[in-house]
Amino acid sequence: MTLLLSNEDVDRLLSMRECIDALAIAYRDLASGRGTDRRRSDSFVAGPVEGSLYSLKSMDGIAPAFGVGAVRIDSDVVTWPTRAGNARREKLAAAGGRFVGLVLLFSIATGEPLAIFPDGYLQRLRVGATNGLAADRLARRDARIVGLLGSGWQAGGQVMALCSVRRVERIRCYSTSREHREAFAAEWSERLGVAVEPVASPEAAVRGADVVLCATNTIDHVFFERWVEPGMHLSSIKRPEIEPAAIERADVIVIHARDASPIHVVAAGVDVPEAREGKGWKLLGEIDFTTLPQLHDVVAGTVPGRTRDDQVTCFLNNIGRGYQFAAAGGALYRKAKAAGAGRELPTEWFTQDVHP
Amino acid sequence: MTLLLSNEDVDRLLSMRECIDALAIAYRDLASGRGTDRRRSDSFVAGPVEGSLYSLKSMDGIAPAFGVGAVRIDSDVVTWPTRAGNARREKLAAAGGRFVGLVLLFSIATGEPLAIFPDGYLQRLRVGATNGLAADRLARRDARIVGLLGSGWQAGGQVMALCSVRRVERIRCYSTSREHREAFAAEWSERLGVAVEPVASPEAAVRGADVVLCATNTIDHVFFERWVEPGMHLSSIKRPEIEPAAIERADVIVIHARDASPIHVVAAGVDVPEAREGKGWKLLGEIDFTTLPQLHDVVAGTVPGRTRDDQVTCFLNNIGRGYQFAAAGGALYRKAKAAGAGRELPTEWFTQDVHP
Repeated sequence: MTLLLSNEDVDRLLSMRECIDALAIAYRDLASGRGTDRRRSDSFVAGPVEGSLYSLKSMDGIAPAFGVGAVRIDSDVVTWPTRAGNARREKLAAAGGRFVGLVLLFSIATGEPLAIFPDGYLQRLRVGATNGLAADRLARRDARIVGLLGSGWQAGGQVMALCSVRRVERIRCYSTSREHREAFAAEWSERLGVAVEPVASPEAAVRGADVVLCATNTIDHVFFERWVEPGMHLSSIKRPEIEPAAIERADVIVIHARDASPIHVVAAGVDVPEAREGKGWKLLGEIDFTTLPQLHDVVAGTVPGRTRDDQVTCFLNNIGRGYQFAAAGGALYRKAKAAGAGRELPTEWFTQDVHP
Repeated sequence: MTLLLSNEDVDRLLSMRECIDALAIAYRDLASGRGTDRRRSDSFVAGPVEGSLYSLKSMDGIAPAFGVGAVRIDSDVVTWPTRAGNARREKLAAAGGRFVGLVLLFSIATGEPLAIFPDGYLQRLRVGATNGLAADRLARRDARIVGLLGSGWQAGGQVMALCSVRRVERIRCYSTSREHREAFAAEWSERLGVAVEPVASPEAAVRGADVVLCATNTIDHVFFERWVEPGMHLSSIKRPEIEPAAIERADVIVIHARDASPIHVVAAGVDVPEAREGKGWKLLGEIDFTTLPQLHDVVAGTVPGRTRDDQVTCFLNNIGRGYQFAAAGGALYRKAKAAGAGRELPTEWFTQDVHP
């Protein structure tokens, strides 16, 4: 049977700690070349409403440690509005008020489709877990104070992950919408059992912080060099969040993946802000994304992480990897099977008797 | 609702002629840049049995003329045995005696998943339709005699397609297995209403043929320069089938796509015959795949096809495109909706209320 899981199943079955542990196992495999993944691709054509584009995004990877291959697909109507002076990328809930993102898991022993589930919760888990794993290797052991920029979906994943790897005592949250940051603080104080405090400026969030978590939807800079302090760990989930001069202040810079530019496939006459960057994906200011150490090498121990308390460290989650969906999805699948969770669909629906 | 279709639905709903017509519409769009697709990727890790590999293949594309984006995924255990002196690529029926290939169709207006179906029948239709569309532009108008090399799954698609674009009178079929070619001849004589004759040598199949269809699983050459005759159209579904010297004899050479090498992602210690070729994908002997005319330009009329009866023409279906699954899949979906075909699955299974 092929398991159909819901976001609620994912939320109930796989903890952030388990996701971080799964990534740690899988990234050691990746460092030794046993796991593989294929670069993300983003294809665009004109969208259904003025200023919108239709985007078909896909990535895939194989994690032998978990016995699975995964394909993740996002099918979205996207817009790029400006809010509070920052250009943002926003998906429309065009699918009857809903969004479309799917993960399909396949067995590497038989090829069979093992599971199908929406990508939303796992997406947050794997982004959080990635930055959490990096923070575990790069942030000071005694990090207690967190400055958070952003209060959306990914911001929650980031604080969950950091609280899984450090004894966090206080989180100061800034985002451009007062309403959003206050709601975020209320929700996550309760969920984490840690004081989350909404603050009125980014400076108030990051001043004196041991760890700065950028978790926004912006495609502009949100953290600046003048805010860097000795011993800080800087963490980002989107390439442009931290200005290049701030990154250059770091003693240790680690990125997620070197081969970092998505394959952009854009129809004629369609203008896509992030595709415009072109070769810019390889460079951010003077920072060359083709030579920096990668997270899996730090996890495997072949590249050192933080070595002194006064160092500034920086992790740039510069692109998502299909491999993460294989690793985290494989861990999820094991837990789902053990728990008897999900809806069983006949595997015959998704297999065939011909050899194409 | 999201439609779950079977191979039988595909077979019943979409004729080869309709598939060729859909590709013709979509390829005109492709020539003008309105449609897009992303290069195929093949990822490999060690397989479950000695000499096998697990392969996760994916491709995707968006065909605005049909309002859909498509992702095609194949999850296979693959081996490379040698049969009758030729190295072949063979998939094992490891999924409980079945194979795993899926197409997912998405609406470009809403992002919604419109349909899910196995790829086998559409795969054959789209490969056949591609070579059929090429033959329609390149073979002589009065072509009647066909030499077929191969008797497998794709060979059927090739003769179906050619019979849709030319008044074929006789098909001579050679394949290394006598049993297979005889069974093929019996089956397809009846299905096509055209005499299909099994012959004991490749020469007997191709001598005097107006059109030579190569439709094998080989990764070696099967058609040679010494067999080329004036006025012939040569057609191939796999890059190495026609030896380079034979291709060079053609007055008009058209390929499917210039950006032709799949993205090969191969785990450490894993040897993949076709990935070994590396840059070889760009060259076959002296033939440079980066500069030859592409099928969509011939379909759009921006590049001429055959202009004289005595010309030798050659179409190399050098790689499959995700775009074909969007075009043919979009045409299939329209017919399925009109016929009320397929099993309706709740679209909510494949959508979500969060914004990842």
